[in-house]
Amino acid sequence: MEADNLKQLLENVKNGSTSIDEAVIKLKSQPFEDLGFAKIDYHRKLRNGYPEVIYCQGKTVDQIKAIVERLMLRENNIMATRAGSEVYEAIKTITQDAVYYEAARIVVVKRRDIKATEKVIAVITAGTSDIPVAEEAAVTAETLGNKVDRLYDVGVAGIHRLFANMEPIMKANVLIVVAGMEGALASVVSGLVDKPVIAVPTSVGYGANFGGLAALLTMLNSCASGIGVVNIDNGFGAGYLASSINQM
Amino acid sequence: MEADNLKQLLENVKNGSTSIDEAVIKLKSQPFEDLGFAKIDYHRKLRNGYPEVIYCQGKTVDQIKAIVERLMLRENNIMATRAGSEVYEAIKTITQDAVYYEAARIVVVKRRDIKATEKVIAVITAGTSDIPVAEEAAVTAETLGNKVDRLYDVGVAGIHRLFANMEPIMKANVLIVVAGMEGALASVVSGLVDKPVIAVPTSVGYGANFGGLAALLTMLNSCASGIGVVNIDNGFGAGYLASSINQM
Amino acid sequence: MEADNLKQLLENVKNGSTSIDEAVIKLKSQPFEDLGFAKIDYHRKLRNGYPEVIYCQGKTVDQIKAIVERLMLRENNIMATRAGSEVYEAIKTITQDAVYYEAARIVVVKRRDIKATEKVIAVITAGTSDIPVAEEAAVTAETLGNKVDRLYDVGVAGIHRLFANMEPIMKANVLIVVAGMEGALASVVSGLVDKPVIAVPTSVGYGANFGGLAALLTMLNSCASGIGVVNIDNGFGAGYLASSINQM
Amino acid sequence: MEADNLKQLLENVKNGSTSIDEAVIKLKSQPFEDLGFAKIDYHRKLRNGYPEVIYCQGKTVDQIKAIVERLMLRENNIMATRAGSEVYEAIKTITQDAVYYEAARIVVVKRRDIKATEKVIAVITAGTSDIPVAEEAAVTAETLGNKVDRLYDVGVAGIHRLFANMEPIMKANVLIVVAGMEGALASVVSGLVDKPVIAVPTSVGYGANFGGLAALLTMLNSCASGIGVVNIDNGFGAGYLASSINQM
Amino acid sequence: MEADNLKQLLENVKNGSTSIDEAVIKLKSQPFEDLGFAKIDYHRKLRNGYPEVIYCQGKTVDQIKAIVERLMLRENNIMATRAGSEVYEAIKTITQDAVYYEAARIVVVKRRDIKATEKVIAVITAGTSDIPVAEEAAVTAETLGNKVDRLYDVGVAGIHRLFANMEPIMKANVLIVVAGMEGALASVVSGLVDKPVIAVPTSVGYGANFGGLAALLTMLNSCASGIGVVNIDNGFGAGYLASSINQM
Amino acid sequence: MEADNLKQLLENVKNGSTSIDEAVIKLKSQPFEDLGFAKIDYHRKLRNGYPEVIYCQGKTVDQIKAIVERLMLRENNIMATRAGSEVYEAIKTITQDAVYYEAARIVVVKRRDIKATEKVIAVITAGTSDIPVAEEAAVTAETLGNKVDRLYDVGVAGIHRLFANMEPIMKANVLIVVAGMEGALASVVSGLVDKPVIAVPTSVGYGANFGGLAALLTMLNSCASGIGVVNIDNGFGAGYLASSINQM
Amino acid sequence: MEADNLKQLLENVKNGSTSIDEAVIKLKSQPFEDLGFAKIDYHRKLRNGYPEVIYCQGKTVDQIKAIVERLMLRENNIMATRAGSEVYEAIKTITQDAVYYEAARIVVVKRRDIKATEKVIAVITAGTSDIPVAEEAAVTAETLGNKVDRLYDVGVAGIHRLFANMEPIMKANVLIVVAGMEGALASVVSGLVDKPVIAVPTSVGYGANFGGLAALLTMLNSCASGIGVVNIDNGFGAGYLASSINQM
Amino acid sequence: MEADNLKQLLENVKNGSTSIDEAVIKLKSQPFEDLGFAKIDYHRKLRNGYPEVIYCQGKTVDQIKAIVERLMLRENNIMATRAGSEVYEAIKTITQDAVYYEAARIVVVKRRDIKATEKVIAVITAGTSDIPVAEEAAVTAETLGNKVDRLYDVGVAGIHRLFANMEPIMKANVLIVVAGMEGALASVVSGLVDKPVIAVPTSVGYGANFGGLAALLTMLNSCASGIGVVNIDNGFGAGYLASSINQM
Repeated sequence: MEADNLKQLLENVKNGSTSIDEAVIKLKSQPFEDLGFAKIDYHRKLRNGYPEVIYCQGKTVDQIKAIVERLMLRENNIMATRAGSEVYEAIKTITQDAVYYEAARIVVVKRRDIKATEKVIAVITAGTSDIPVAEEAAVTAETLGNKVDRLYDVGVAGIHRLFANMEPIMKANVLIVVAGMEGALASVVSGLVDKPVIAVPTSVGYGANFGGLAALLTMLNSCASGIGVVNIDNGFGAGYLASSINQM
Repeated sequence: MEADNLKQLLENVKNGSTSIDEAVIKLKSQPFEDLGFAKIDYHRKLRNGYPEVIYCQGKTVDQIKAIVERLMLRENNIMATRAGSEVYEAIKTITQDAVYYEAARIVVVKRRDIKATEKVIAVITAGTSDIPVAEEAAVTAETLGNKVDRLYDVGVAGIHRLFANMEPIMKANVLIVVAGMEGALASVVSGLVDKPVIAVPTSVGYGANFGGLAALLTMLNSCASGIGVVNIDNGFGAGYLASSINQM
Repeated sequence: MEADNLKQLLENVKNGSTSIDEAVIKLKSQPFEDLGFAKIDYHRKLRNGYPEVIYCQGKTVDQIKAIVERLMLRENNIMATRAGSEVYEAIKTITQDAVYYEAARIVVVKRRDIKATEKVIAVITAGTSDIPVAEEAAVTAETLGNKVDRLYDVGVAGIHRLFANMEPIMKANVLIVVAGMEGALASVVSGLVDKPVIAVPTSVGYGANFGGLAALLTMLNSCASGIGVVNIDNGFGAGYLASSINQM
Repeated sequence: MEADNLKQLLENVKNGSTSIDEAVIKLKSQPFEDLGFAKIDYHRKLRNGYPEVIYCQGKTVDQIKAIVERLMLRENNIMATRAGSEVYEAIKTITQDAVYYEAARIVVVKRRDIKATEKVIAVITAGTSDIPVAEEAAVTAETLGNKVDRLYDVGVAGIHRLFANMEPIMKANVLIVVAGMEGALASVVSGLVDKPVIAVPTSVGYGANFGGLAALLTMLNSCASGIGVVNIDNGFGAGYLASSINQM
Repeated sequence: MEADNLKQLLENVKNGSTSIDEAVIKLKSQPFEDLGFAKIDYHRKLRNGYPEVIYCQGKTVDQIKAIVERLMLRENNIMATRAGSEVYEAIKTITQDAVYYEAARIVVVKRRDIKATEKVIAVITAGTSDIPVAEEAAVTAETLGNKVDRLYDVGVAGIHRLFANMEPIMKANVLIVVAGMEGALASVVSGLVDKPVIAVPTSVGYGANFGGLAALLTMLNSCASGIGVVNIDNGFGAGYLASSINQM
Repeated sequence: MEADNLKQLLENVKNGSTSIDEAVIKLKSQPFEDLGFAKIDYHRKLRNGYPEVIYCQGKTVDQIKAIVERLMLRENNIMATRAGSEVYEAIKTITQDAVYYEAARIVVVKRRDIKATEKVIAVITAGTSDIPVAEEAAVTAETLGNKVDRLYDVGVAGIHRLFANMEPIMKANVLIVVAGMEGALASVVSGLVDKPVIAVPTSVGYGANFGGLAALLTMLNSCASGIGVVNIDNGFGAGYLASSINQM
Repeated sequence: MEADNLKQLLENVKNGSTSIDEAVIKLKSQPFEDLGFAKIDYHRKLRNGYPEVIYCQGKTVDQIKAIVERLMLRENNIMATRAGSEVYEAIKTITQDAVYYEAARIVVVKRRDIKATEKVIAVITAGTSDIPVAEEAAVTAETLGNKVDRLYDVGVAGIHRLFANMEPIMKANVLIVVAGMEGALASVVSGLVDKPVIAVPTSVGYGANFGGLAALLTMLNSCASGIGVVNIDNGFGAGYLASSINQM
Repeated sequence: MEADNLKQLLENVKNGSTSIDEAVIKLKSQPFEDLGFAKIDYHRKLRNGYPEVIYCQGKTVDQIKAIVERLMLRENNIMATRAGSEVYEAIKTITQDAVYYEAARIVVVKRRDIKATEKVIAVITAGTSDIPVAEEAAVTAETLGNKVDRLYDVGVAGIHRLFANMEPIMKANVLIVVAGMEGALASVVSGLVDKPVIAVPTSVGYGANFGGLAALLTMLNSCASGIGVVNIDNGFGAGYLASSINQM
């Protein structure tokens, strides 16, 4: 089922000419392809308005290759996350369109143009070590059709670095704050703006950081309102959620 | 500083006629009133576009009363969260405008009309026991100027209850999913829609629930993308974040 | 003591012609062989109706070989779990009957036919990365004499993939649900069927997954009834328990 | 939809005369009644073959009464778990058929006969303090149509008490082992029988018991195979799962 | 042994006229009084330069009274921490000099003048609810002879409140930062000053705050240098440590 | 079976005239009395050489009374631990011999003389608040026939109080160290003596003490050798283990 | 100070001819040798009656060699624990007397005869994988002058293996129970004997074992009395404590 | 802005000739250099009175080199912490002034003389394995201009080693106590002195040490007053805080 048809179907649901139940059945008619080890879900991009995403961690290179090959047949854009260079090498043997964002550990295969919204997502890090997670968020948001403004290494220990960057912070429509160690940056940023803030704790740190738990708890307990938290090191999830907000 | 002035100021910042630094100074000129035990922050509502909020937990009734009395002078709307009935009784001695939302444990003092957006926030719970937290989110969102659609007791153990409510779910602009026990509802809902989902773990449950930790971890680890998580039982935070997204 | 004798003994216990105490003594007469570092328990297979099982993790290859050699003398089937390829290579030097299930990390030495029940155990995974644990469960159940139906990558983020597989799910007599990340699949499946569900949390995931703890807590706190949980990544335990239920 | 119709429908699904999708729609046609704060799920008992169950914890007495009143109209049996005496008093004002199992904290309203299977579920506790949880399991299993054999206070510290009860243990078809403190009883029992064992950790204990966590971890890590674990103090879940196994 | 003698003794140790071993023996000669349930340590005040401190939590009122009575004989100042009003009432029956600092839960019996240093300890809280812990710190520091400047409710969610108080912050010689919830204030303050910062996490908050654990981890993992952390809610410890630094 | 017979039996086992299996059967012949909710274990005292012990926590007063009544028939000494005053009141209605050790929360019914060994167990506490746990240990040890030397409030913060008590510490045959907060006393004591040290962490403390976890971990990780740790607040267990060592 | 002198000194303390303080001074006169990175404590062996022990983990090979060289000058026995083969190789270059117990990871340098007591310490493991920790305990106990009886792989899942070894268990004077996974063996053994049991949790296991935490909690919460627990994998500590009990 | 100017500015703030706001603006004028991946903060050293510090963990060697190159232009001293030898090799290619403190894992580039205060910081370790963390603290303190006295391997298991070093302990102005395992040394030292104690838990240990958590909790719960705790293994933080106290 193509995107236009889907839109039509959902409109019919809204105006009552199609019942929910009928719609569910139609949606289910050819929703995925079964490779045995994976059910490739072609609907997901349509329902969610985004390219196909492959989460590579825990999949073998052969499994990833097989999934990419099938997806290629549909001429969709593909984004492979948590992809080591060996994944990139493998995808390159299938298509020359693969681009590797090394810091972000993301491979993008671009087969259609991505039309970006003018509204900006700011991706802010507390430190230099948080950049890989921030890049995962930023490349995800860009691939999903958003403009991204990067502000790295502006943690609260030297808060004037943050204040010297108030202009891009104030201009952003959605903000992603990426911070390890104690993760206090999310609270400070959220107190300064009245836009949604997506907080990403990172596992950067040591000792009683407990693999990102400290930053995670900090962000969940923020005294500032308006913060949604994603999993530790989950740059992709932050970029995806920010994009879904930014494109409303 | 009044709201119109603030808006003007920020526009000047944007067009460069006022520097960030000048703006910061102006913002700081009379930003709060100091009661000693509390710094009442009159700017916050303007910066964030919302009424004054008092978080009552941990404050004495006398402290809350003193804060409300000062806020009353400004003729703003006031929302007191985590407010027991004794707080409501105390505020009623100050103003007859106080309304008590008992399930939500929120007192609202309405002095100005709240203009609600047409876009709907759906507040969904897994069970009946999650309703108090859901009501905190719903009343918060309503007080902040949003329409709210409540869908209670549609947890995944009887998933047909959820599917029979697909219409309001699909129509919502932002979704708040409130769930205790294992908290799986957030993942299922997020997989069905392509709108932002705010997930609120609740402390409902027992044993290895560990006061909401189980639901919290479930939501943070969701295999579905596009979920932002707030603190356990933090209905206010969810309503606030959903509102800031809904009013973009 | 042979299996028939054992059955006879237990029947005598039931009808009172042998006392419990006498039976215990008889059972103890030659129950295991002592290799010093291991007590090989020949009775276990009889009491439990199953082949000999060697849990390889933490044992040296030499210890495993010594145990297999002794077991070979009894002409029983042998199943070595958590077996790396080096274990398989070592067992192959003893017998050509060894078969290696690589994904499951199980070596099976088949010396007697396994008569399978017609009733089916469904093994269901949320994602592709959960397959190794699922295979451990599936191969275990098959080796213990059960038919297994595999349904992989049907997690709740795309719930239509699950519903498109309702037929095998409904037909199964026992269900094993294997899921990492947030582990919500077990609750959804259990709500759809009225058969016993064995839930296996996996360590698949990252960040606040804490090595499978998130999925474990999800499954223990499930709002759906009728779920028994085994240890994280314990595919063998799930297969074993499912088999003991399936063969009642 | 009545039970016979449901059975017929599912058989049609099995023989292919009705598609899964059609069946799902039919199932969804009148599946629950919406009280706003609760969606009463009349199908659940049919799908699962059991009476209606109300989990009382976290619900107000008024909510429970409203649910019971609606359920009474269907003439089904009702089981209210985690019910304090005030719940029992409230239900008694609706119907004289209510029976209160105080130790189990369960109210049963019996409107139809429960036909019990001849196969026995043994409910075994380590100590006297574990009895309330054990009674929740036992009364649940009995209400769901099972014979129950109670063996209380046979923990491993005096293991001869366990061995003196080998006869009922050996005769049971399914075993529920309820233990707090270190929870070792589940491993010992499971090693003695080749029947499914449902292990229920209890919060009985103190100090490093951490509210039942110690017993929970013990049971999850059992060196004996064939154990399914439920949540801490979850006697209902254990009784329910044991019943679904016992009635296969 | 009187204070002057002690000073002399330690000077003799420094100049070598008394050996360490001799000094230890002398110190041990009459170091405490044994009440059986408590060893009253008269030396502690001398060695540390401070009044006698009674930590009341876990002691019975009778035990506290007995200790105070003995201490009164020495004409020292006494500070009883974690003292409920019943403790104050009991001490008042012994001496009229008892003063109760209710917010701080401290009773002070002042028998000698406390000579305060001119250097100032700033006690800063993130919120109003943190005040009781802050008062414990402040009253402790004052009783130990320090000037204290209180700055309450200046948390990072409205950071202009903090910046509007830069003058007292910059003037302080030692800073105590008291914060619950996410505890980010300590990092921000420490980044602004180059004086020692004592951070006190409080148990203020809810949900994933876990009784102060979130704020504790935040402070331990601070990206700002120069922070020493004390136990959750340990206002006394913070005041004591700040005093020992301030009086160097 | 009487104690002399038991001794004879075990000697026969040693000299081979009775097989282990025969002995087990004999031991099982009349080992306990079944009250339904409890299996009273008369053998335990004989096997372990001690009076009957009732752990009262989690048992109803009626259950405790019933157990005491049966035990009285045997004319054994009885010790009821974790016994509130209501338990004492109940036991007093059965026998005038009951003595209540209030601080220890132990009721002792003495029907036979306890012959104490001359060797001394020292019970040492870090603080006054640890005394209730220490008394549970001390009264247990005394009731089991040991001399006990109490040394309370000698924690490491004022280590001279410890050194001033070296004589009783050095003279003890076994040492029980009871400490909450950070629990460091066990390491220091164990480094000073070459006798077995039983360490009892207590839940005394607050904040990051986490109910005794801090002291527990301290004792388990002690850099001093020769320490055996029991559960948090487990004074009985410490007294019991110390007694079994002291009477070797 | 030689051992005889030390004994004399302590006797003088006991009979009062030397004061505690004098003794402390004498003990301090030449108690250790300072290598800068280590203070070699020659007194420890005398005070505790044992050879010198070097804990190798965290020390460089050069540091270990330097310590051994100094110890050699005193002609004492030396035991190096947690010693990899590279440590053994290094010590061999110093003395030919070094013996390497590979499974135990202990190097022993024997320069004086060890006179063993006749009383036996039983070292019991639940599984084969627990043997390395058990060997550390056994070799430690043997080097400290005890007879050791090894009983390996007798875990509770096949409890008849345990009962078939009742004779050596009953004959032991002290028992060390080494178990990973759920660690239930300690409770069962302790219930069978009335001798002190030292329980050693091991990190053997996976998933919710959490590196030995499960077994540790099991042992701490044991319903059987008379168990002292040491740190996870702390075979040395168990052997040391058992020896100090066995040689009383 | 140079240091003298900064001092002048702050004095102006104090005497009122410059407002806080003006000062903040001036401070913000050229506070850092933006390398994109890092904002080099030249003000920090001035504000805090210390050299530039680079925390190397999580930064690539290229990033570190780029930062050092920029810092070199200012002729400041540079300290690179958590620096492996590859970092040292890279910095050496930029400047010959680099000195590598291998045990401390610190590279120092000294371009200006460091004027050390006469007051001494004592760095004390419990064991030999704690030395690397202690060296990080010691080298940090020395580079920041302090005299350091090292006392290694004086843990509480042999407390006479500590007492034999009372003289340097008593003479120190600030004490850093570095301890892993159970971390009890901090409490003992703090009880002996009346100077500020900075406690550094280390991850040295195993089992229930949980990567330093045991020592961390010990130190936070210390019964001795006057202890400030830093993160696990955070030698730098301890050295920095001790220096800021020592130079008051």
